[in-house]
Amino acid sequence: MERMDRTAQSAFDALFYPRAVAVVGASTHGGKVGNFVMRSLLASDVEKVYPVHAGGAKEILGRQAYPSIEDIPDDAVDLFLFAIPQKHILKSFEAALTKGCRGAVIYTAGFREAGEEGRRDQERLKAAADEAGVKIIGPNTLGFFRSHSLMNATFMPVLSDLFREPGSIALVSQSGGVAGFGAIRFAEDRIPLGTLVCLGNRANVEFADMLDYLAYDPHTRVVALFIEGLDDLRRFYEAALKCAAVKPVVVLGAGYTEAGRKVARSHTGSMAGAERIYEAAFRQAGLIRVHSIEELVDAAKILSLNPLPQGNRVGIITHTAGPAVLASDILARHGLVLADISGATEEALVSRGVLAPFMPPDNPVDLTTFGYLDRSLYVKVLEILARDAGVDAALAVCMSGLGDPNVETFPARQFGEVAARSGKPVVVAWGAPGYAREEFDAWMEAGVAAYPTPERAATALANLYRSSRLRGRRRSFASPLEFPEELSDFVEDLRSSGNKILLEHQAKRMLELAGIRTAHAVLVSGEDEAASAAREIGYPVVLKIASPDIVHKSDVGGVVLNITDEEALRRAYRYMMETVARKAPDARLEGVCVQPMVPTGTDLIVGGIRDVQAGPVVMFGLGGIWVEAIGDVAFRLAPVTEEDAREMMEEIRASAVLEGIRGSAPVNRDALARLIVTVSHLMECFSIQELDCNPVIFHNGTFTVADARVVL
Amino acid sequence: MERMDRTAQSAFDALFYPRAVAVVGASTHGGKVGNFVMRSLLASDVEKVYPVHAGGAKEILGRQAYPSIEDIPDDAVDLFLFAIPQKHILKSFEAALTKGCRGAVIYTAGFREAGEEGRRDQERLKAAADEAGVKIIGPNTLGFFRSHSLMNATFMPVLSDLFREPGSIALVSQSGGVAGFGAIRFAEDRIPLGTLVCLGNRANVEFADMLDYLAYDPHTRVVALFIEGLDDLRRFYEAALKCAAVKPVVVLGAGYTEAGRKVARSHTGSMAGAERIYEAAFRQAGLIRVHSIEELVDAAKILSLNPLPQGNRVGIITHTAGPAVLASDILARHGLVLADISGATEEALVSRGVLAPFMPPDNPVDLTTFGYLDRSLYVKVLEILARDAGVDAALAVCMSGLGDPNVETFPARQFGEVAARSGKPVVVAWGAPGYAREEFDAWMEAGVAAYPTPERAATALANLYRSSRLRGRRRSFASPLEFPEELSDFVEDLRSSGNKILLEHQAKRMLELAGIRTAHAVLVSGEDEAASAAREIGYPVVLKIASPDIVHKSDVGGVVLNITDEEALRRAYRYMMETVARKAPDARLEGVCVQPMVPTGTDLIVGGIRDVQAGPVVMFGLGGIWVEAIGDVAFRLAPVTEEDAREMMEEIRASAVLEGIRGSAPVNRDALARLIVTVSHLMECFSIQELDCNPVIFHNGTFTVADARVVL
Repeated sequence: MERMDRTAQSAFDALFYPRAVAVVGASTHGGKVGNFVMRSLLASDVEKVYPVHAGGAKEILGRQAYPSIEDIPDDAVDLFLFAIPQKHILKSFEAALTKGCRGAVIYTAGFREAGEEGRRDQERLKAAADEAGVKIIGPNTLGFFRSHSLMNATFMPVLSDLFREPGSIALVSQSGGVAGFGAIRFAEDRIPLGTLVCLGNRANVEFADMLDYLAYDPHTRVVALFIEGLDDLRRFYEAALKCAAVKPVVVLGAGYTEAGRKVARSHTGSMAGAERIYEAAFRQAGLIRVHSIEELVDAAKILSLNPLPQGNRVGIITHTAGPAVLASDILARHGLVLADISGATEEALVSRGVLAPFMPPDNPVDLTTFGYLDRSLYVKVLEILARDAGVDAALAVCMSGLGDPNVETFPARQFGEVAARSGKPVVVAWGAPGYAREEFDAWMEAGVAAYPTPERAATALANLYRSSRLRGRRRSFASPLEFPEELSDFVEDLRSSGNKILLEHQAKRMLELAGIRTAHAVLVSGEDEAASAAREIGYPVVLKIASPDIVHKSDVGGVVLNITDEEALRRAYRYMMETVARKAPDARLEGVCVQPMVPTGTDLIVGGIRDVQAGPVVMFGLGGIWVEAIGDVAFRLAPVTEEDAREMMEEIRASAVLEGIRGSAPVNRDALARLIVTVSHLMECFSIQELDCNPVIFHNGTFTVADARVVL
Repeated sequence: MERMDRTAQSAFDALFYPRAVAVVGASTHGGKVGNFVMRSLLASDVEKVYPVHAGGAKEILGRQAYPSIEDIPDDAVDLFLFAIPQKHILKSFEAALTKGCRGAVIYTAGFREAGEEGRRDQERLKAAADEAGVKIIGPNTLGFFRSHSLMNATFMPVLSDLFREPGSIALVSQSGGVAGFGAIRFAEDRIPLGTLVCLGNRANVEFADMLDYLAYDPHTRVVALFIEGLDDLRRFYEAALKCAAVKPVVVLGAGYTEAGRKVARSHTGSMAGAERIYEAAFRQAGLIRVHSIEELVDAAKILSLNPLPQGNRVGIITHTAGPAVLASDILARHGLVLADISGATEEALVSRGVLAPFMPPDNPVDLTTFGYLDRSLYVKVLEILARDAGVDAALAVCMSGLGDPNVETFPARQFGEVAARSGKPVVVAWGAPGYAREEFDAWMEAGVAAYPTPERAATALANLYRSSRLRGRRRSFASPLEFPEELSDFVEDLRSSGNKILLEHQAKRMLELAGIRTAHAVLVSGEDEAASAAREIGYPVVLKIASPDIVHKSDVGGVVLNITDEEALRRAYRYMMETVARKAPDARLEGVCVQPMVPTGTDLIVGGIRDVQAGPVVMFGLGGIWVEAIGDVAFRLAPVTEEDAREMMEEIRASAVLEGIRGSAPVNRDALARLIVTVSHLMECFSIQELDCNPVIFHNGTFTVADARVVL
């Protein structure tokens, strides 16, 4: 895997490790952004700080100030922070370029988010920055913060106080507010943040750029993202897959815009909502998707503190059953199980006096009130469980003494040492209020991930397990698929003839040239031609009207199924021509398609659509009623690997149907995976707008596309 | 609705408002339960406390101690707390009865949870208590706590410190641990708990008893439950429905035992897992089901502080967009919407200088950094939104200044006053760490429900809205349904003939007598009889083998569908007799059923099963593949009202199918509701073990039971 290009890398270094920084719009007035930023900067590890104050202040917060950028007596100011009104930004930015600017933060709003004029200003800004090789964080941003070689370029000076220690988690957020809420939760748990970047309007620094950088940033072990929407989901996906291959990436998404999505008439199109497409990209890239800020922080915390589990078997230590039950329920929902502890473990629990004689050694290990009062028991039990090869991870539940002088302090340090030695992940549900700081701090100092409820501890462990499974699965981009030249020629011909909505026999021909079996359709005109085609195909057959103007053929009498002999065929043909002429008098008719009647079997749908943000995507689902009633389908960005296709089969709710229910045979997953892969490559190679194979019928070991629709 | 009976009421009063309390097993030793309990009690509003210490201590924690219960110089000690070894409990309890005991708490474990002997001891205890009219909390419990006329009967003395103020929330939990974790979360948020009861082994105080009491307890506004399993789910359901009719009841359930559930062969039976049945009872009773301790506490908090919203339209106030987006996503998922603010509101937002000229008045009202710095804007906006008749509730998002001297304190009190005057619920997402106590305290003092993340604030508001919808829906128990005497006679005859698994024609006859239309089956023996039955019914017909020993008829060639004439019938008959004789040589054959072939339509399943904890339950779902592939069904305790039946129809995932998809007609919901109601009454009235109507086919406006199975 290649690193990001050198120029980009060095531009980011200029942002994060600047030699000198200018604050344009620095202010002495406490309530101004330019004052907050100055204070942030002065609490950073950067020596050369140049406040720029158009009002002519001589000094701001003890630093000499300059009336304009041009007056700064330094031509190598690599970072510029802009806290001035929108209308001055462009000019100031250009001035900054003359002073050696290589990175910039623009806090000011009023760009792309504020209508057409703002959008144009942002375009200009981007053009200037791109030309100069400058990376801009923002506009409309909280800025960024790094705790290694402390650099606080936000208007939250307090971040420097909250995160004094260097940390290994990077939080990248579109929204400054979500970053703020997240940072506060990290601070509450005493988890040092390594990097906080708010992308704001993303003039020329996108999530993909940050992922490219963070993948190789030695200070970052875990990446956490908050995404509201992306301009280029495909670029994000590619960067995310590469980053997730080397370190865990947790993602929280919300409020994806549906704007720009066209109303599609195909089945696939009608299912392709923004949330589904984003979710598909996240899965396909191997990200850990979470559903709240709290879960994002909790997941980042456990990932930064623990090794990955080798399996799904959990040992629980508790002094009270109920919370362990709540934790077990959540673990079970995520594929983790209570470990069957070994005979040796049982023996050790009893013989070392950990459990009283009347307490059965079992998992959860319930120490009852003895464990509440004598917390050294927890350390002993963890030692025993950690040695059990059948235990992959441990979860401890314990309540604080809440200041009761008769309840001893939990030996968190010893517990943490045993956990670290074990090489297995250990998580704690610590029943104490958040304001009992010393107790939570003790857990943090011991390097143990502690959470205030059993559910959050269990959910965090489930996310850690998810990460281990994602890492175990080698993800890759699909290799190119060679299609025969005949197919390219066929598509080229159609395209050059201005043909966009293919007729069924054309759509099927296209699939056949790609190696997909269809209920081959022959276009005929006239009853006699139909009869001779049917003889060749063999009865029973199906007749369908062929017209570029008729989308719903059945509605106008344009479909007759299960025609068993020539007499019936001729009757059906005449009836169809009459009915269509009556019901769709203006439709241009190209003729009639004759195709074999496909025997019944398991109905599937495989399709594709070109998404405004993701480009070509492929969809798989169970056919007919399943799609319509519960939208039970899976999407991926095209093209996909066979691995991806298999995940799509597992993802649908009614995947049991693929196993064969009610006596039907299980579908051939290999062949189905190949079919999905082929369709996904078709979508990509031939710039197809919409494609529906619906239904694809699995019968007698083979898949046949009974009906197809393609829009080029 | 009747109150709980007088005796029970007074026994509970003895628990909660005792005149005098004895602590049996009181201890001077700090680490003993008997010491914790003494300390709890001494921090309670009870004057007469009698420590009993068998070792002969003269005094415990400043109170005169007695060597035995008999030595207590008071014959009206209404409450006894037992912290002595299991083996002494029974005898001591009997001694307590001689001293006027009317309520007891038994902390000691080793009863029902500890095997056969413990179970018997608990039975004895219960018998003695019931006879004396004494209510026992426990055994194996943390005890209980009340904050009105402070009474701490737990071994957590610190509860008295955590909850000094009387509160309006009652938390009832099986598990002391979950109660502890929950109490700590309440304490963290400064929400006063009114009542905390840990039921432990539930000797003779069950959830149902507590609900009966709390429904009429003037100190309780909101009830929160944690349930692991119940002996009598039906009794719980009845008490819960009555309590939820007068105050909101929030429930967290987990770890329901599957033990005691029999493996059923019917479709209905195979779907009836414990979780589904519990969930059904919770819904039917109108409870608010939550999924974690945190959500339980968050819901109880908002319910205790706010009026119910009149509708689902929410106004959001924020200074940063991202968190508002996260909140909106969650609101939308629960049926709430962003309010369309009125022209007058827009006008007010602009004209009163709340929004700068370039900020468009919209919902969410985004105050940007202006709002972060000038928090009085929040109060102004709330005032404006509250007056908008199109806004039913408000959610504010704001971040703490985190100690920055240039960020003013949020005017929580003024904000709370405006909220209170508005009569509308108001909730806040307050971005501050939990240890910033004063800030959260300010919210609590202002009577405003504040949460540390936007998602938790939105989820809490969603639960408040859920409560308003539940209150708007009048729930009731089903009125009895009169069945014709002929039906009772028919069932009686079958029962007295020892017939348990009904043959299809019998099952259908039973349904028909209850007024349900079926594909009437005629039992015949011999080909000629079959032919004459078919003539009478009219072709096409179906033949099915009738044998008590054959469950899966198709597997042995015992079903032939769609027989169109007499010749085919005779052939089918002979073929069936031959095949069945070969494939099931030992089966007793009662003959063959002839029935009409039901035309295809929408397939449904309606069934019932007798559950070990809930008694008769009724199930509804879509037939065939839906049940098997995704278990898409809804349960309720039988009998149900038509209202319940309608909720079942809405509950299934594929409810769109009922609307009619792919050109099929929408089903008749009135008729379907009546069908479900009738089946539910059948389940109840005739002690049916299992019943499957599968499929029930909706065709041409009517429902026909095509196949039926009944086990008496």
